[in-house]
Amino acid sequence: MTTETSAYQALETAYLKLHRFEHLRSMAWWDQASNMPPKGNTARGAALAELATLLHRMRTDPGLGARIETAAREPLTDLERANLREIRRDWRLATALPEALVERHELAVSRCEHAWRQQRPANDWQGFLGNFRDVLAIAREQAERLSQVTGLAPYDALMDQYEPGMTSAELARIFGDLRTWLPDLIGAARERQAREPVIEPVGRFPVAAQRALCERVMRALGFDFEGGRLDVSAHPFCGGVPEDVRLTTRFDEGGFLGSLLGTIHETGHARYEQNLPRDLLGQPVAFARSMAIHESQSLSFEMQLGRHRGFVEWLAPLVSEALGAQPAFAADNLYRLMTRVEPGLIRVDADEATYPAHVMLRWEIERGLIEGELEAEDIPAAWDARMLELLGLDTRGNYKDGPLQDVHWPEGLFGYFPCYSLGAMYAAQWFATIRQRHPDLDQRIGVGDFAPVFEWLDGNVWQQASRWSTVELVERATGRPLDPACFRAHLETRYLG
Amino acid sequence: MTTETSAYQALETAYLKLHRFEHLRSMAWWDQASNMPPKGNTARGAALAELATLLHRMRTDPGLGARIETAAREPLTDLERANLREIRRDWRLATALPEALVERHELAVSRCEHAWRQQRPANDWQGFLGNFRDVLAIAREQAERLSQVTGLAPYDALMDQYEPGMTSAELARIFGDLRTWLPDLIGAARERQAREPVIEPVGRFPVAAQRALCERVMRALGFDFEGGRLDVSAHPFCGGVPEDVRLTTRFDEGGFLGSLLGTIHETGHARYEQNLPRDLLGQPVAFARSMAIHESQSLSFEMQLGRHRGFVEWLAPLVSEALGAQPAFAADNLYRLMTRVEPGLIRVDADEATYPAHVMLRWEIERGLIEGELEAEDIPAAWDARMLELLGLDTRGNYKDGPLQDVHWPEGLFGYFPCYSLGAMYAAQWFATIRQRHPDLDQRIGVGDFAPVFEWLDGNVWQQASRWSTVELVERATGRPLDPACFRAHLETRYLG
Repeated sequence: MTTETSAYQALETAYLKLHRFEHLRSMAWWDQASNMPPKGNTARGAALAELATLLHRMRTDPGLGARIETAAREPLTDLERANLREIRRDWRLATALPEALVERHELAVSRCEHAWRQQRPANDWQGFLGNFRDVLAIAREQAERLSQVTGLAPYDALMDQYEPGMTSAELARIFGDLRTWLPDLIGAARERQAREPVIEPVGRFPVAAQRALCERVMRALGFDFEGGRLDVSAHPFCGGVPEDVRLTTRFDEGGFLGSLLGTIHETGHARYEQNLPRDLLGQPVAFARSMAIHESQSLSFEMQLGRHRGFVEWLAPLVSEALGAQPAFAADNLYRLMTRVEPGLIRVDADEATYPAHVMLRWEIERGLIEGELEAEDIPAAWDARMLELLGLDTRGNYKDGPLQDVHWPEGLFGYFPCYSLGAMYAAQWFATIRQRHPDLDQRIGVGDFAPVFEWLDGNVWQQASRWSTVELVERATGRPLDPACFRAHLETRYLG
Repeated sequence: MTTETSAYQALETAYLKLHRFEHLRSMAWWDQASNMPPKGNTARGAALAELATLLHRMRTDPGLGARIETAAREPLTDLERANLREIRRDWRLATALPEALVERHELAVSRCEHAWRQQRPANDWQGFLGNFRDVLAIAREQAERLSQVTGLAPYDALMDQYEPGMTSAELARIFGDLRTWLPDLIGAARERQAREPVIEPVGRFPVAAQRALCERVMRALGFDFEGGRLDVSAHPFCGGVPEDVRLTTRFDEGGFLGSLLGTIHETGHARYEQNLPRDLLGQPVAFARSMAIHESQSLSFEMQLGRHRGFVEWLAPLVSEALGAQPAFAADNLYRLMTRVEPGLIRVDADEATYPAHVMLRWEIERGLIEGELEAEDIPAAWDARMLELLGLDTRGNYKDGPLQDVHWPEGLFGYFPCYSLGAMYAAQWFATIRQRHPDLDQRIGVGDFAPVFEWLDGNVWQQASRWSTVELVERATGRPLDPACFRAHLETRYLG
């Protein structure tokens, strides 16, 4: 009684259905982080675990495997073939993980993340450990199983979920190079900045005024409020679905730059999501390419554009209008505030020169955790040692601004952190390319004309979605593979130029 | 390989799973009404329809039918047997509706409700009709199918989903009686009130101050903010799940009584949900008994308690504190404002004496619509005629304060409206009973001691959940079946006493 459809069409139908259930998961997850009262947590965890089980069953349906093989022999367009490649990858990774493990993972990260929200402000490392040991044990098992099907090392197999094609060997090469020149650059930048006076903003900045400023900047950056929202959560993120993007920030009345720059960062993620191609929405080929490419969007917004001298000239009067004029808000001074290089404890507040240290530190620790060289209770000592070595900071006993600061580990996200630094490098490469095509780029940004940036990103990244592998995407967009020299040149121009 | 479990245990497992998916549906629905940006609507509708299909498949699983029969022969506790009775009822109603009809229903009401949110303020009846005709056609088909399995008339079969055991014949008897004395009572009350001067509140009441007042009253009424939230939506409702109750209101800076009394109303629903028995949570026997019983809780809070003279004496200083003292907020005057009898256009703003007119009008129209005596385009004329006849008001051309005012029809909820008036009658019966047990009830309310009310409701209604049929519940709690004379006595005491 069913009408005859191709195996490929049946796969598209199955993935559209998955997308619809993923919609409910994304929204429940956003709600959990930004709305849910504490007593709702157990029921929410159970509901999300039930959904995760369903999604896992749908993803590992043996019928899919057979259809993938049949579809490979059907006549397909290039785009369909790219979609089939992504479906095959999804199926291979999903079938590597047994249902019971997926269920244990869901329950463990839900419990750990929820408790972490109170444990972080309370500096309660011991309380956190109680839940985190389970999360780590499950992550190691996932890594082992993914390693078996991908042939990658266990940590690399986890990283491959977020950044297909990236390996620790490649990272070691990139970070190794960084170590040879970044400490000198940081030193030189700080020495130079020490001679430049900076006026600190004074006063308290009411949440309502900060929110209005954030929303105004989001509008200028093209965020579509008809298809998304700005809310508050402990750890800012960009969630929801491409059709309804849920962006969060956090406000501190003692300072406005954290929420503003955090919001600009998440707006970069949001525009990628809001501008993914709509024709095949729901199909793997129409989703964002990878997490490093995603971070390259947020960092294009936050670092390349948001801290551009011209952007700050455009921004300065908006800040005065929203928060009241004061000497600190003069464009020159604001630029100095926004580009200050200063080792600090918090990754998300770090400047772009010291940021890679935060990532290298986490990468080394989480690799050690996954590969069994470190245990959960070893984290504080490993953290303290590296913070001292890389940034000269003492973090002993300060868990809340140390290993408790990020949501990633409570959420069981191991292998994600390197994407931030890779994203910074891709972002520098995007802007080097845009600047070549538009020699007047810097002038245009200075008058609030960001169109060259948005148009280039839209055509070369957003609309391409997952049509190409990351390597192909980068080569098509910029004519060469990932080139960390662009990041170095960017930092030298901005901080030493 | 599966361990041996009883058929009854397998049913409990299936219903726990259903409850978890219903959790996601409730939250997505709450989000749709209170957060979702307009462009998210299509994707949300598709996601909810997909989930509805899944839930319908789970509910109509042929295996369930067999297990229900087997479980009926197993040794069960009384509570388990009551649960089995409710499961059987759920299964019978679910299997009456084919999957394709459920899918059409979900898509149609999602489209109609979403558009209605703009159409109502725009007074756009014609635009509304475009979507509503589909909703009505689907409701008629549902009614026909439910009628076949229940043996009830089509409209009664719809009503039976919300209020099992209630029929139009019974309603005709109750409303027929009401018509014989209510118009005189309204006339006498208005005449009497015309001689009492009332001072109107003056000024604008900022949303933040109104919200703080609502939250304070909610706390005094026992709402647990650790297990729920207050938000804003176009049409106030109490949603979420018992573990995480999501209550909404709407604010109007021109007047505070609407949001305050609406919030008190929804808090009654919320306390029922928050105090359902937890042991069997997720099982049908542990959910609220019926919609009229649910409304009896909201109306116990809004009408019996919230407009009680003693309650208003307790409330008056809180209002002055929140909104600034003014002559209108003196307890005597506030009581007059809150108990004014005055025919008006809006059901949710209606006083308790004229409210039944709003229900009778809707009941007559929706019965006509479902039984084919009226078409969608006949609604305005039918509405205008009844508003003139029952309340002496001219509503011609004013759709937004007429048939567009309620969310029920856009949501495809036909057969629900009678529950409001039945709820008002049950509420009067609860308070008559509580007053018998606690002769000092009125004095205690006056000093802010609401414990006798909460304790009686908790023991006799909340903790009973769906253990008994509605008729049994009422008889156990009050010693007699529904007795509309309690409602009449209540109105006579309050308005003519």
